[in-house]
Amino acid sequence: MTPKYPYDLRTGYPNTEILVPHEKLAAIAQDLLLTDRATQYGGILQGPLMPREQIAKWLTANATQPATPEQLVITSGAIAATDLVCRTVTEPGDIVVVEDPTFYYMINILKMSNIEVVGVPMTPQGMDLEALAGVVEQYGERLKLVYSIPSYHNPTGVNASPENRKKLVELAQQNNFTVLEDTTYQWLYFDSPPPPLCRHYDNGSGHVVSVGSFSKTLMPSLRLGWIWAADEAHAQSFTKFKGDSVASTLTSGMVGEFIAQGQYDTQLEYARNHYAERCGVLVEALQKVMLDYVQWDVPQGGYFVWMTLPEHIKAQDVLELSQARGADFMPGRLAYVDGADDRYMRVCFTMMDDEKLQTGAQIIAESIEAVAAR
Amino acid sequence: MTPKYPYDLRTGYPNTEILVPHEKLAAIAQDLLLTDRATQYGGILQGPLMPREQIAKWLTANATQPATPEQLVITSGAIAATDLVCRTVTEPGDIVVVEDPTFYYMINILKMSNIEVVGVPMTPQGMDLEALAGVVEQYGERLKLVYSIPSYHNPTGVNASPENRKKLVELAQQNNFTVLEDTTYQWLYFDSPPPPLCRHYDNGSGHVVSVGSFSKTLMPSLRLGWIWAADEAHAQSFTKFKGDSVASTLTSGMVGEFIAQGQYDTQLEYARNHYAERCGVLVEALQKVMLDYVQWDVPQGGYFVWMTLPEHIKAQDVLELSQARGADFMPGRLAYVDGADDRYMRVCFTMMDDEKLQTGAQIIAESIEAVAAR
Repeated sequence: MTPKYPYDLRTGYPNTEILVPHEKLAAIAQDLLLTDRATQYGGILQGPLMPREQIAKWLTANATQPATPEQLVITSGAIAATDLVCRTVTEPGDIVVVEDPTFYYMINILKMSNIEVVGVPMTPQGMDLEALAGVVEQYGERLKLVYSIPSYHNPTGVNASPENRKKLVELAQQNNFTVLEDTTYQWLYFDSPPPPLCRHYDNGSGHVVSVGSFSKTLMPSLRLGWIWAADEAHAQSFTKFKGDSVASTLTSGMVGEFIAQGQYDTQLEYARNHYAERCGVLVEALQKVMLDYVQWDVPQGGYFVWMTLPEHIKAQDVLELSQARGADFMPGRLAYVDGADDRYMRVCFTMMDDEKLQTGAQIIAESIEAVAAR
Repeated sequence: MTPKYPYDLRTGYPNTEILVPHEKLAAIAQDLLLTDRATQYGGILQGPLMPREQIAKWLTANATQPATPEQLVITSGAIAATDLVCRTVTEPGDIVVVEDPTFYYMINILKMSNIEVVGVPMTPQGMDLEALAGVVEQYGERLKLVYSIPSYHNPTGVNASPENRKKLVELAQQNNFTVLEDTTYQWLYFDSPPPPLCRHYDNGSGHVVSVGSFSKTLMPSLRLGWIWAADEAHAQSFTKFKGDSVASTLTSGMVGEFIAQGQYDTQLEYARNHYAERCGVLVEALQKVMLDYVQWDVPQGGYFVWMTLPEHIKAQDVLELSQARGADFMPGRLAYVDGADDRYMRVCFTMMDDEKLQTGAQIIAESIEAVAAR
């Protein structure tokens, strides 16, 4: 894919040339096709058993709770998984809460269920739970779902604290709403792992549903994700809303076989090192060129650096100058439910090589300086 | 996949061992993966350009109207395409009409949009348009969508006449609803092609949206289908409801490359011959063993033989005796919106070999006779 701007610090995609284990996946695909093992429809709406067994095995080893194939639904990506869960647990007119800001695309996905999206501010410890309690009080039973990215939050990079996760789950149990936790970045930590998943703090009561993706750890074109529900009945409740019936049994089979061969742990470590290195290059560049009055933290995982400009500098003005010189980033206001002050910037470090990250950082810094001097 | 019953005349799947061009698809998949050409997200929500160009080229050669890549949206199968269209053109509480009976799974898919499904009877010429006019009169503007399978209808096998198609489109234009035509079986004719698509009778007014699939012509596990809209804006109107974002660029790329290599025409002819031969074996068996008082027609395309029992014989009773001897079929009442008289049977000829089709037909006929003798 050719980015629109040569210094693309906007698009939150992996660099597939580096991330994807091309030879291994090609060999698996070829074997599955030649032996007619991944050619048919899926049969069961939860997805074929083999990949569910393998994903369950992997989750059991990499989360704090055992996972079973019966608890899993294979989906056409984490976005489709989120759509499914939202469609299942809400009715038109219900309330869905998101962190504000959140993964911008998800706001549209949730709204497709004809629900109302309410934003709750972020704090450095995770979602502002006092604000959430206020939403609970205001809307009562209309609040059915809270969509959260607890680890290496998109776009802020925040890692919710264990206490924050625990309290969020308690609120869900007390007020009978579902927490949908998006684990896309959970295993993309740089040094030490983040706190356990939110589901760790649930006692199997079914108030937490976890969704995940293989797009940022293995290959986006698989379009493969999963729902991890509390039990089989809970998992099956989501399958009747599978607008695409079953995910591709070819790409499901590729993932299942990749895990079964023991390759996924190696791949994840490779992905973590790769992203940590990209992040390191950007952080080093930013530390050299970024202005003192711009606030940002060094990411501990994930894909993004989140920057806050002084009130009088508009991110849109910075963006226009940057783009004119070939450097792109995402204005943070786009990640808010109802827009926001135009002083936030999401900068992604995953797509570009060293030189482009360095030049991109410099162009952005110089653009900020130019706007500040106006 | 191992069928639940050895003589499986229920499941409407292809026999992948025979249908799928394993070596060719494996070679294409390997090439796409090794060259990093089908590893990334899709970027544009309509799907990558190359496969859209190829599908457009193929449609242009095989329908009566030119297709452009701008008119197309690549989807995770025809079911996902139908869901997308329904979600886009309806609001909760609207009315969606289906042929009664119809593809049973689609009733659930449509209901996911919180609309009300109303059935309109089938005639030997296609949907009963007088009955449809009555629905228009009753519901007025609440009627937003008519889902139709004009060619080799699932489950009845009916091929709607050109006049019926033309009149359906006129009704849509006059009353401003959308006709969603499912073309899954359009190109799976045995001798001569069916009438043109419904869109042939539309003057580009956008009242017809065609959806299609590669599952029954190439390989189900691709999970790949398409929406053919009137123009680019019409196509884009459907993308904002893409709950799975984009379909797999790997399987999109495989289809695109397969068409680009000129393989798809050969494959379709192979598929048509294969299905015609399967159908011939079942029809010959039925002509030998089926009882005179059972009504059925020889299919001209598609997947199914539709049978009508005399009023006093219940398909469910027949099914129980058949299953006890290992032969399965689909009771036709399951394909009706609100159930129906239990005197219909859908018999599928695509999965089984000669001997199993013959034995299955015999078991079913003997089961009918046994129920009749009670």
